[in-house]
Amino acid sequence: MAMERTAERSIGVGVLGLGTVGTGVVQGILQRGDLIRERTDLALELRGVADLDTERDRGIDLDPRLLTDNAEAVIDDPAVDVVVELIGGIAAARSLILRALEKGKPVVTANKALLATFGAELFAAARANRTGLFFEASVAGGIPIIRALQDGLVASRFDRIYGILNGTCNYILTQIEAEGASFDDVLAEAQRAGYAEADAALDIDGHDTAHKTCILATLAHGGAVALADVPVRGIRGISPLDIAYARELGYRIKLLSVVRCAGDELEASVHPALVPLDHMIASVGGVFNAVLVSGDLSGDTLYYGRGAGRDPTAGAVLADIADAASRLLTNGPWSTACYSAERKTRMRDPGQIRSRHYLRLSLQDRPGILARVARVLGDHDISIASVMQKESAKGAPVPVILLTHEAAGRNMDEAIRQIDAMDCVGAASVQYRIEDFIAAGI
Amino acid sequence: MAMERTAERSIGVGVLGLGTVGTGVVQGILQRGDLIRERTDLALELRGVADLDTERDRGIDLDPRLLTDNAEAVIDDPAVDVVVELIGGIAAARSLILRALEKGKPVVTANKALLATFGAELFAAARANRTGLFFEASVAGGIPIIRALQDGLVASRFDRIYGILNGTCNYILTQIEAEGASFDDVLAEAQRAGYAEADAALDIDGHDTAHKTCILATLAHGGAVALADVPVRGIRGISPLDIAYARELGYRIKLLSVVRCAGDELEASVHPALVPLDHMIASVGGVFNAVLVSGDLSGDTLYYGRGAGRDPTAGAVLADIADAASRLLTNGPWSTACYSAERKTRMRDPGQIRSRHYLRLSLQDRPGILARVARVLGDHDISIASVMQKESAKGAPVPVILLTHEAAGRNMDEAIRQIDAMDCVGAASVQYRIEDFIAAGI
Repeated sequence: MAMERTAERSIGVGVLGLGTVGTGVVQGILQRGDLIRERTDLALELRGVADLDTERDRGIDLDPRLLTDNAEAVIDDPAVDVVVELIGGIAAARSLILRALEKGKPVVTANKALLATFGAELFAAARANRTGLFFEASVAGGIPIIRALQDGLVASRFDRIYGILNGTCNYILTQIEAEGASFDDVLAEAQRAGYAEADAALDIDGHDTAHKTCILATLAHGGAVALADVPVRGIRGISPLDIAYARELGYRIKLLSVVRCAGDELEASVHPALVPLDHMIASVGGVFNAVLVSGDLSGDTLYYGRGAGRDPTAGAVLADIADAASRLLTNGPWSTACYSAERKTRMRDPGQIRSRHYLRLSLQDRPGILARVARVLGDHDISIASVMQKESAKGAPVPVILLTHEAAGRNMDEAIRQIDAMDCVGAASVQYRIEDFIAAGI
Repeated sequence: MAMERTAERSIGVGVLGLGTVGTGVVQGILQRGDLIRERTDLALELRGVADLDTERDRGIDLDPRLLTDNAEAVIDDPAVDVVVELIGGIAAARSLILRALEKGKPVVTANKALLATFGAELFAAARANRTGLFFEASVAGGIPIIRALQDGLVASRFDRIYGILNGTCNYILTQIEAEGASFDDVLAEAQRAGYAEADAALDIDGHDTAHKTCILATLAHGGAVALADVPVRGIRGISPLDIAYARELGYRIKLLSVVRCAGDELEASVHPALVPLDHMIASVGGVFNAVLVSGDLSGDTLYYGRGAGRDPTAGAVLADIADAASRLLTNGPWSTACYSAERKTRMRDPGQIRSRHYLRLSLQDRPGILARVARVLGDHDISIASVMQKESAKGAPVPVILLTHEAAGRNMDEAIRQIDAMDCVGAASVQYRIEDFIAAGI
């Protein structure tokens, strides 16, 4: 062939875990070798696959001699140069990754829960053994957001990052709006359709988004952000009423991951928020994910795509395998700067986070009640930007929707506590942050 | 410092061209050294800057001893490891880049016109001299789209790429819709506001978008795509009427770059197209750019951000400088697979490209005329999906808007030629493609 090429060397890959994504990765290595070689001059060779279940037919043409139930043996095999961890969970995955890193083998993982809890330890092990830990697939599956933050935007400080990072939640919110159905009905339907797990708590209570938020915050700001420092509120029980009222007011409710710099402090949180309908983030529907990165040089950039699913996630893992293989050939560079356990990030007190708020109050229809509520808000330094009062059946509590100006979260919590204790209040108030995508107030 | 780091080596950077972006890059190297070092362990050092104008105050703190009007001297300086070409234009830039590559020095450029015309030669020179040519800033300024295609989506075949790649055109289209004003008025206003050049032809006639389309098509499919193979239609003279009618029908008009695989052929073109209002691409307003990449593993991914401007573009150049510097330290890998002059891409005959179409006819208000038009369309194998007829002043021609089913471009051109020759037609017909973002018909 006429075209000059750099010397090609084959790189041995070992895959731990043959679930949905693992199967996609194995199939990718087997079927896309030519494509990857053409683009990168790398010949990826599958040298071992470990899964506890070595019997099940996964519909892929995998040489049975490559399949074992012994993950350690795959890691220890001298023919395996890059280890891919896709077994999930914490304890076993952690010890397998450490074992590979200690042998100087780069590791590719999609394990967000593990990175959010033991990331600092794992990255320290990678550094100490002069190898790398790759995790593109851990956040927003098919969207190359990790590379964007690490490489493409390397010269920008990340003032603000907003993410829709959980496809299940976004699907449920999209369906509630489309159908006006209740949260429970839509969740049950999503479970039947395979868009939600039977045990959906990890997704709908926001924990999966919190794992990914830790990873983004750590990557963007260089010091490990602990899961415990990320306040989490999920979408469980969210009412079609609030979604409809938000829409009337020009907003859509999304489960947001927010990472903002506020002076020398960092704010990281997960919560449902009202976002303006005309903002790109509001257009992210169904199971799709998106990340908005506001950099001080780059300005606003947004990345959109599938956050989960076999093929998009396998594509991200394959990109990491190619990256690891390429660095093996030149002996690095291995990234060093992120997840430093030494570097402390000063986290902002969540109660100090300022934003506008959406409030739905359930008030008895008597004169003077709105004035009493307004007085409580005023006492907590919260001023009202607009009021929308809905009709209700005679005698029933009236829904009153307030949008406030910027106020601190702690003041809002305290005001709601007082309002909900008033005798004129028919049901617990509902409150959500309004996200205007502007700089954090200090 | 406790944290282990890889050995740091300083890399000398020479910048050719101290215009808007060059000034931003120089300022970035001078002011963001700590940030880039912290993230990459690379110490970038400015070692030389060349510009014909060595006198003008650019508001940056540049040591005057580094500034020269001799670009060759900067390239030849042994202290300069990476050369950044930001002078623009073709002839001089080409010979300077070749000079640097022949010395084995990696080059970073934002010069899309040059890459679209001499890309194959320049990449061959980079390969022959075992060095690299980096061009993230050449397409969609602040959006790391080149990296996404080269690295993040390395395992995906790119079935379809759609781009809004020219901020000036997108700004003008956005303003015409917002104000209902004429193209000429909005262009003049954009020129006053600095959103359009005094000589706007390169932008509004679509040539700038065509340059970027060549780069994306070549990068995505590995064989050089020539500018001559990309049919181009710009937005000059686009009417607020069509923008308003499109909106009534649920569409927005955008200047699109389209790169699609159709069997073993590649389609690359630039044209204004109607895109569905509820598609993410329709939400890209003002000077922003976006690229939608549909990959066979990744699914649809979209990248959005500022396509031009000093800081976003300088950020992309700085990312490339860091990348080049990092590869210098490990002596590669240098990317080899794209822009192969040997590899031929089979381009699709533009007349064969099939799509739905928007047609605005200007017909005399007499019985039977629509039937005559419909017959001409039918004779060309074009079937009508919907008709919208507007009222007009007594005796004046009636605007009739037709949306067609899929039809080949050549048939549509021929049908319009015949329709416009009919005596019952009051003015030339207006035709745009409708883009549904689906696979190319074969």
